[in-house]
Amino acid sequence: MPTYVLLIEYDGTGFCGWQRQANGSAVQAVIEEALGTVLRRSHIAITGSGRTDAGVHARGQVAHFRVDRRLDMNCNQLMRSLNGVLPNTVAIHHLVEGPDRFHARFDAVQRLYHYYISLAPVVLERGFRMHFKSALDFTRMNKAAAYLLGTHHFGAFCIARSSTTNRVCTMSRATWVPEPGMGHWRFEIEADRFLHGMVRAIVGTLFMIGRGSSEPQDMQRILASMDRRAAGPAASAHGLVLEQVRYRVPLFANMEERP
Amino acid sequence: MPTYVLLIEYDGTGFCGWQRQANGSAVQAVIEEALGTVLRRSHIAITGSGRTDAGVHARGQVAHFRVDRRLDMNCNQLMRSLNGVLPNTVAIHHLVEGPDRFHARFDAVQRLYHYYISLAPVVLERGFRMHFKSALDFTRMNKAAAYLLGTHHFGAFCIARSSTTNRVCTMSRATWVPEPGMGHWRFEIEADRFLHGMVRAIVGTLFMIGRGSSEPQDMQRILASMDRRAAGPAASAHGLVLEQVRYRVPLFANMEERP
Repeated sequence: MPTYVLLIEYDGTGFCGWQRQANGSAVQAVIEEALGTVLRRSHIAITGSGRTDAGVHARGQVAHFRVDRRLDMNCNQLMRSLNGVLPNTVAIHHLVEGPDRFHARFDAVQRLYHYYISLAPVVLERGFRMHFKSALDFTRMNKAAAYLLGTHHFGAFCIARSSTTNRVCTMSRATWVPEPGMGHWRFEIEADRFLHGMVRAIVGTLFMIGRGSSEPQDMQRILASMDRRAAGPAASAHGLVLEQVRYRVPLFANMEERP
Repeated sequence: MPTYVLLIEYDGTGFCGWQRQANGSAVQAVIEEALGTVLRRSHIAITGSGRTDAGVHARGQVAHFRVDRRLDMNCNQLMRSLNGVLPNTVAIHHLVEGPDRFHARFDAVQRLYHYYISLAPVVLERGFRMHFKSALDFTRMNKAAAYLLGTHHFGAFCIARSSTTNRVCTMSRATWVPEPGMGHWRFEIEADRFLHGMVRAIVGTLFMIGRGSSEPQDMQRILASMDRRAAGPAASAHGLVLEQVRYRVPLFANMEERP
């Protein structure tokens, strides 16, 4: 069956998250509706690389959908038509015909998130950058984050009500990086998979350590506890952006790799 | 008289501009009100380095105010109190006691603006980055922009109703620079002074050249005409940000220079 793959940016502010919920507007549903309008079909289901929570943004969400026969319009036409009907909080940046059995979730090998903060009040970027009001020691935070690298059970950073039984993830990046702009930093975190609430729990724990209320070495103990209550409170959703999902084969020609 | 100097960021979206107008909310007025609230004085007038139009943003606006005697709170306390009462569309990033006769407008020697665009739909940055819907040839645009460097009469890029008689400016930078992110570019433009509507008229003219409806060399003819009708239509306000105002003496310690 012809399979189409989309690269999607969205502002998570007004959404209940990627996935349909009992209440609220889901990014997935908004794109499915746009597809229905443009292709004049009753219902086309799209599958994302993963769910993002309410308020979490994406610049590089990947999703696929399948249709029973190839579309009569080309991919660029379809992308433009979709962008024409989507709200200004969602845009499709690439749309290509993918490999036949491609699956946005199961075929993904790496996910990269950035968490954006500023130690100063945030104005122009306030929709996607969190204002952290205390001083932070980024050297301590990076020391703590280094304990997360490699393959571990991340139960300590998974929300309690999650039904996922496999809580082992392999983390390949976890670093705070300074950015241009007064007091601007971002946390880059990349792993093969993420558990529900995992990035925000890790960032919240790093804040505790950066403020001095925990030690960098405490990260080892928290990780080993496999108990969510040992970690810090979840950082606010609005600083979090899903930046990139990687697949074995590059999907989008001319796509700029984010470093 | 004690003189205080502020470095201000604002989101121009909901404002009628920097300066008070008959209608609408002005950034200047909002800060003066906040000063009145915090210092419990009836009216303190602030003077900016220059006006910005309705919808234009700033990350580096500089302003000063004078008081008859030194304040009883220190500058950091005052800055925090101001940020506590200002709306989330305005923030003070630095507040220092300046040289006695310092004047934010008359002492400024250079102003730097950035104009942000994307050739792809803009979601997260849609408040301050303009989506340009046609292809642009940035090599042509930079060739045209180079004609602006140096000292010229910029009457062709000044709104017709302006009362400013001296229309000579010295331009030290005018370049399009690619940015990270799909189809993202910014125009960096720096001069000793800018006329009313000047940056947006220049950007609009460069768009005409970048799309192929004028030639790079036409910039010479437009400049020499000193006639606003010879230039292109003004580019939308929401892509424009006042980034930095330079003075002979650095005002703010530890201030990160934007490159």
